[in-house]
Amino acid sequence: MHKFWSTMVRRTEPYVPGEQPNTQDLLKLNTNENPYSPSPKVLESITEETNQLMRYPSPTADLLRAEIGKRYGLEPDEVFIGNGSDEVLAFSFMAFFDPGKIIRFPDITYSFYPVYAKLFDIPYEEIPLEEDFSIPSSAFANSPGGVIFPNPNAPTGIFLELESVKEMVVANPDCVVIVDEAYIDFGGESAASLIADFENLLVVQTTSKSRSLAGLRVGYALGQAHLIEALIRIKDSFNSYTIDRLALRGALASFQDHAYFSEKTMQLIRTREMTTERMSALGFHVIPSQANFLFMEHPDIHAADLYMLLKKENVLVRHFDKQRIANFLRVSIGTDEQMERFLEVTGKICMG
Amino acid sequence: MHKFWSTMVRRTEPYVPGEQPNTQDLLKLNTNENPYSPSPKVLESITEETNQLMRYPSPTADLLRAEIGKRYGLEPDEVFIGNGSDEVLAFSFMAFFDPGKIIRFPDITYSFYPVYAKLFDIPYEEIPLEEDFSIPSSAFANSPGGVIFPNPNAPTGIFLELESVKEMVVANPDCVVIVDEAYIDFGGESAASLIADFENLLVVQTTSKSRSLAGLRVGYALGQAHLIEALIRIKDSFNSYTIDRLALRGALASFQDHAYFSEKTMQLIRTREMTTERMSALGFHVIPSQANFLFMEHPDIHAADLYMLLKKENVLVRHFDKQRIANFLRVSIGTDEQMERFLEVTGKICMG
Repeated sequence: MHKFWSTMVRRTEPYVPGEQPNTQDLLKLNTNENPYSPSPKVLESITEETNQLMRYPSPTADLLRAEIGKRYGLEPDEVFIGNGSDEVLAFSFMAFFDPGKIIRFPDITYSFYPVYAKLFDIPYEEIPLEEDFSIPSSAFANSPGGVIFPNPNAPTGIFLELESVKEMVVANPDCVVIVDEAYIDFGGESAASLIADFENLLVVQTTSKSRSLAGLRVGYALGQAHLIEALIRIKDSFNSYTIDRLALRGALASFQDHAYFSEKTMQLIRTREMTTERMSALGFHVIPSQANFLFMEHPDIHAADLYMLLKKENVLVRHFDKQRIANFLRVSIGTDEQMERFLEVTGKICMG
Repeated sequence: MHKFWSTMVRRTEPYVPGEQPNTQDLLKLNTNENPYSPSPKVLESITEETNQLMRYPSPTADLLRAEIGKRYGLEPDEVFIGNGSDEVLAFSFMAFFDPGKIIRFPDITYSFYPVYAKLFDIPYEEIPLEEDFSIPSSAFANSPGGVIFPNPNAPTGIFLELESVKEMVVANPDCVVIVDEAYIDFGGESAASLIADFENLLVVQTTSKSRSLAGLRVGYALGQAHLIEALIRIKDSFNSYTIDRLALRGALASFQDHAYFSEKTMQLIRTREMTTERMSALGFHVIPSQANFLFMEHPDIHAADLYMLLKKENVLVRHFDKQRIANFLRVSIGTDEQMERFLEVTGKICMG
C-alpha cells in the first residue's frame, strides 16, 4: 500500500513517541520540561490575544524578533522565529546543508540530527565524543558540508567553553556551524556574542526549557542577516504563517519579563546543584551539568534496572539503550520538592 | 554573501507579504478572514489550557484527530493535523510528489502550489481554466506525478461538482489527487465522502476560514490510513511537535461546538448572496461563489483603478496583477454591516 509514497517518505523511519503515561501522582522527569509555570504576564497576554484569533498572525514576527534581538544586541534581521527549535533546525538543514556534502555532529547527541539528515538526503559523519563525553572540537575542523552540535550537549549536559566553539567556527570557514543552545540558559555562555565576527555561525535557541513554554512551540535562530534571510526564504516557501498569534504574543511577554525568567532559572540551577551533590553522596557518578537535567550512572545498579525500579515507584526518568551510554540515566530537574521525592525513592532503591 | 546558501534556498524566491496596513477604521476585505469571533468555548478552553504551557503538547494530536474524524465518519488514523493547511500542503508535496514526475494544477489557483513545487524541485504543468474559469477536469487525467487543486477554486470561488472530482480521482489511479478544500464549508460538498472508495484521494481542510481560527494555525488532511501514515512520517522527521497546546485545545473546542459553526457559516452565506445580488445590480459581473469571497469585474471601471479608489476610502480588497484575471477584484465577505459599507462606497465610485 506504499505505492503512493515519495522517495522522501521512503527514506524516513517511523517515530516512536516518548512515554506520556497518564498515571496519577507521576513524577515526570523524562523530557526536560521546566517545573515552573511561565510568567503570569505570558498567561495574561495570551488571554488578551484570543480576541484576535479570526485574523492571521504576523507572517514576519517583527515584534518578537526585535525583542529577542535586543536581548542579544542583534538587529531584527539577525533573528529568525520558528515553530519550536525543531522546526528551526529542520529549516536550517534545508537552508545550509546539501546532498552530496558530508556534515558532522557528535556520536552522542540530540537524536534528531540524523533524522533530519535522512529526510533531506544529507550525508553525515558522527564524531565520537572523548572518553569523558566532552566534544573533541578539533575533530570538526574543515567539515565538508557543515557542523551541528548542542551546547550544552544532550544528553550529557556538558558545556563546551566558548573558546572551543570559536575554534570550531574558525576551522570551518566554508560551511555553516550550527550551535544548538536549547539548554544554554542554565549556566552556559551563548555563542551569540560571536555572531558579529563570524558569517558562518548560526545559534539556535528555544523557549521550551528555560522559559517554561514547551507547550507553546517557539524557537529561534540568531545569525548574520544573510543566514537569517536563507531561513526566511525556506520558511516562506514552506508555510508563511508558522507561528500562531498566541505563541507570538506569549513568547513576547516572556522575553519582556526578564526578572521572572532570571529568578526561575537561578532557582533551577540551585536545585540542580543540590541534586548533584546528594546523588554523588548516594554513590552516583554524576556528570557536571550546565543544563536542566543530570546524566548519571551508579557503579552497582545497572541503569536499565534502576529505570524500571524508579518507574515502579511512579518516577519516570530517561534511559537510552545506546552504546557507551547504556548505563546512564538522564534525570530532568524539577522543583526542590520533586527532587526530594526523587532522592528519597532513589536512596531507598540504592540501600535496598 | 550567499556562499552559505543550499541549492534548495537558491531555488526559492523572496516572498512579499500581503498588505497589513495599520490604518484606523480600515475595512479589511483582502485576506478572506472570517469576520466573526470563534466560539466562546474556544476562548474558554484556550485560557484553561494556559496552565499546562510548561509541558510539551501531544505529538500525535489523538483527541483532535478523533473529533475531526467523527465529523466525517473517519477513523483517527485517517486524519492528519498540521500547523495550518499550508503546512499540510507542504508536507503533502514532500510525501506524495517526486522530482522528475510532473504534477498538474490549474493556471489560476492558489499561489503557493508553484512555490512548494519549486522548493522541493517538483516539475509542474499549469492546466488553463476554461473561459468561464471552471476547472477542465478531463485535462487532469493520467497526470504523471500527481494533481492538486482547490475546491472551491481560489480566487474564483467556483465549486467543482463532486462527480467531476470523482472523475479526476478515477482518471489518476497511479498518483495522489489532493483536493484543497479551504473554502468547502461555505456551500460546497466535501470529497471526504469519497475517501473510503479511493486509495489515492487526499482532502485538505483548514480551521482558518469557516472556523474563524486564522490566528491559531490548524489545518488537517483526510485520507486512507496509508496516505496519513506518509504525512505522519514526514512530520515526525521534520518536527514532532508541530501543533502547540493552545491550538490543539482551541481547535478541539471549535469542532465540539457545531451549532456555533453552523450558525456563523450560514450567516456568512446569506451575506454573500445579498452582496452578490447588490453588486450585480451595480453592474458588476460577479462569479457565482461557494466560498467566503466574491470574484468580480465591472464593464467600465478597470479593477486596478477600482482597487485604488476603494483603498482611498479605507476599503482594502485584493487585486491580482495577473493575465486573464487582471480586471477582477477578490472581495472577502464580512458582516452585513461591513458589506453595507463596502456596497455604499463602491456604489458611490460607480456613480461618480
